[in-house]
Amino acid sequence: MTLIEKARKGIITDEMKAVAQYEEIDPASIRDGIAGGTIVIPKNKLRTFKYIRGIGKGLRTKINANIGSSPYHMDVDEELEKLNAAVRYGADSVMDLSLGSELIKIRRQILKASDVMIGTVPIYQTAFELSAKRKDITEMSMNDFLATVERQAKEGVDFMTIHAGVTMEALQAMERQKRVLDVVSRGGAFLIAWMRKNKRQSPLYEFYDDILDVLASYDVTISLGDGMRPGAISDATDRAQITELTCLGELAQRAWDKGVQVMIEGPGHVPLNMIQENVEIQKALTNEAPFYVLGPLVTDIASGYDHIAGAIGGTLAAYYGADFLCYVTPSEHLRLPTVDDVIEGIIASKIAAHAADLAKGMDYAVEMDRRMSKARKDLNWDLQIKTSIDPVKAKRYRDASEIGEHEECTMCGDYCAIKKIRESEG
Amino acid sequence: MTLIEKARKGIITDEMKAVAQYEEIDPASIRDGIAGGTIVIPKNKLRTFKYIRGIGKGLRTKINANIGSSPYHMDVDEELEKLNAAVRYGADSVMDLSLGSELIKIRRQILKASDVMIGTVPIYQTAFELSAKRKDITEMSMNDFLATVERQAKEGVDFMTIHAGVTMEALQAMERQKRVLDVVSRGGAFLIAWMRKNKRQSPLYEFYDDILDVLASYDVTISLGDGMRPGAISDATDRAQITELTCLGELAQRAWDKGVQVMIEGPGHVPLNMIQENVEIQKALTNEAPFYVLGPLVTDIASGYDHIAGAIGGTLAAYYGADFLCYVTPSEHLRLPTVDDVIEGIIASKIAAHAADLAKGMDYAVEMDRRMSKARKDLNWDLQIKTSIDPVKAKRYRDASEIGEHEECTMCGDYCAIKKIRESEG
Repeated sequence: MTLIEKARKGIITDEMKAVAQYEEIDPASIRDGIAGGTIVIPKNKLRTFKYIRGIGKGLRTKINANIGSSPYHMDVDEELEKLNAAVRYGADSVMDLSLGSELIKIRRQILKASDVMIGTVPIYQTAFELSAKRKDITEMSMNDFLATVERQAKEGVDFMTIHAGVTMEALQAMERQKRVLDVVSRGGAFLIAWMRKNKRQSPLYEFYDDILDVLASYDVTISLGDGMRPGAISDATDRAQITELTCLGELAQRAWDKGVQVMIEGPGHVPLNMIQENVEIQKALTNEAPFYVLGPLVTDIASGYDHIAGAIGGTLAAYYGADFLCYVTPSEHLRLPTVDDVIEGIIASKIAAHAADLAKGMDYAVEMDRRMSKARKDLNWDLQIKTSIDPVKAKRYRDASEIGEHEECTMCGDYCAIKKIRESEG
Repeated sequence: MTLIEKARKGIITDEMKAVAQYEEIDPASIRDGIAGGTIVIPKNKLRTFKYIRGIGKGLRTKINANIGSSPYHMDVDEELEKLNAAVRYGADSVMDLSLGSELIKIRRQILKASDVMIGTVPIYQTAFELSAKRKDITEMSMNDFLATVERQAKEGVDFMTIHAGVTMEALQAMERQKRVLDVVSRGGAFLIAWMRKNKRQSPLYEFYDDILDVLASYDVTISLGDGMRPGAISDATDRAQITELTCLGELAQRAWDKGVQVMIEGPGHVPLNMIQENVEIQKALTNEAPFYVLGPLVTDIASGYDHIAGAIGGTLAAYYGADFLCYVTPSEHLRLPTVDDVIEGIIASKIAAHAADLAKGMDYAVEMDRRMSKARKDLNWDLQIKTSIDPVKAKRYRDASEIGEHEECTMCGDYCAIKKIRESEG
């Protein structure tokens, strides 16, 4: 039985208990959320790892870090360093998006080393293996793809992004739409190339049930990829995106019917005024499946600072109900992220998740902010630093100032409002 | 006649024309906005500077950088460097908040060097001059304060923060509220100390008309300070804050009656779910005077990354109608900002202002994002870098990658979705 099947039978598993403990929620509500499809606990039945996390309705907002090599830069040790940095700074999951000849080796190392759930996008491996045989992705057979899914499932991957909603219908909607920036999803681009060349429906849609059978047998969670996600503000919430999303609702239902847990992936580049509607339409069309958004980025022009553009969009998305934020690093649109980029991306994403949970009134977040503000009132610097989202940087900043033995900070010095008020209370 | 008096008589001045040209708006609407109090053009009648900017309804969101020395760190050259960095990266105004013995010298240099409007908080100078005479701020007389205002007006300061709404009533509301973090405004703390010691109403409120007379004679814009702004998420939108804001509405009306342009300052630490109401209540209580917010920060725990917490809050505030964003730097709550902190603060604030203007559908912003996305589609790196919010960083990131002569980037390399789609179009 898969986790969702156990939940439907009323069973509370160890995974559900672990999540319930972390969230400080009754285990029965976790079970009910899983049975109803509003919560997932991505965990391959062959894998064990330290931080079991749930994603979905009523739970803390979770964050994901994408790592992995590029064909132009492959370094196992560096990817492991990124993994460790991401987890140390608070990632709830890591996706290994490695491309290039080292991808299998890197994935295995990451699966071995990771304390958090691991996700992948199997079509990348299929594409690589075809190209190693001097074949193009457009020559992919369903068996090629299924073999990759099975291989990765056997290795222990906890969730997989599968772009089964990139259908002929979505492609036609995209073509008729005349987008500014067509398709920016790698998986989406592969499938479009395949459909255009073969002039037939995507095999991932056509043989979707076969994919689900493999996933079910390892209890891998499916993350329904959004190959049509807007890559430009001008393209946000257009007919291509919504055509695909409508299909993802159908595919989610079919996954549940097969006992497979489901998340829905979402955009992308979305202006601030469209974020609420993007979350609400996803929830409506997919029976409230957990929503996993990339950013969203609230502007196209923040190259070098897309972690900030993503934190702005992510906070609002999570506040309106997105459950899982994929970080964006300062490298986005420019290059493969470095370890430092990963850290900056995770922290920005963590600020977004925390600020959204705070706005939703979640106890853990309210308590954390209150602790910080009390520490500020007491000019208790050790506690302020400890309570900071990144104690290392907070300490470095304070230490780098010329504060000496003073109890305030160099911003106001002796004119510190907190000190003044304290004195005036006499 | 002051600018607002000219506007009321139907006159379109050069300042209004300059603003109209920058905003690509009819000069008559700028004039009408000034006459109605929904737009300000802060500019001392004795000063000329390059970038004349309007702040208010229907205009692009503007951003301010706070610079200035601390008693523990005074360096004129460094402050000038901060000024130049702020303006180079897009600040529409700079406030010199210098404290310490060099503050007069620093202000004069900044006023001389600045291409943008300059704001100050005169009570800092009054406090310093009293302490130089071994007197406490609680010994301040109204003449002390008026002399500072007049002196700074004569030097050319364009707008001044005056905390005239920190009244006995606001103080009592604050005391009855039992805040987590009382008062974090320096000006607010000075006035509370004064009222507590002298057991009478704040002179800035009592002799407010005298202040306005000085400001009117130099056409200095008043920025009504929010001494009761929440310094902790737990204190947001409480009775102390709203008592003061209600008073600021009255003070705005009195300023208009004296021919003085007015902005209203706002919080501070505000959870995401309270930002819309904070903007709307400000607009309602002050007859839509321009709203100048500090951040707002959507969490207390982002020390070291408060520019990100501020960008999140600032985007939402500006989207709902805040007109002017005061930046927050990574140094906030930790130390006096360095030049690099200033740059990071300005860029984060600029992303917020831009993302809000984009969400409001402002043409300039929509056009900029479209240009970027077209450059992405064309893999035109020169144009992408040029269109970035910080071309220097964008170029540095791309150059630091191992991209060589390839036309894509190292994120996906040969698996670039844009290339794949282009190829599949055949």
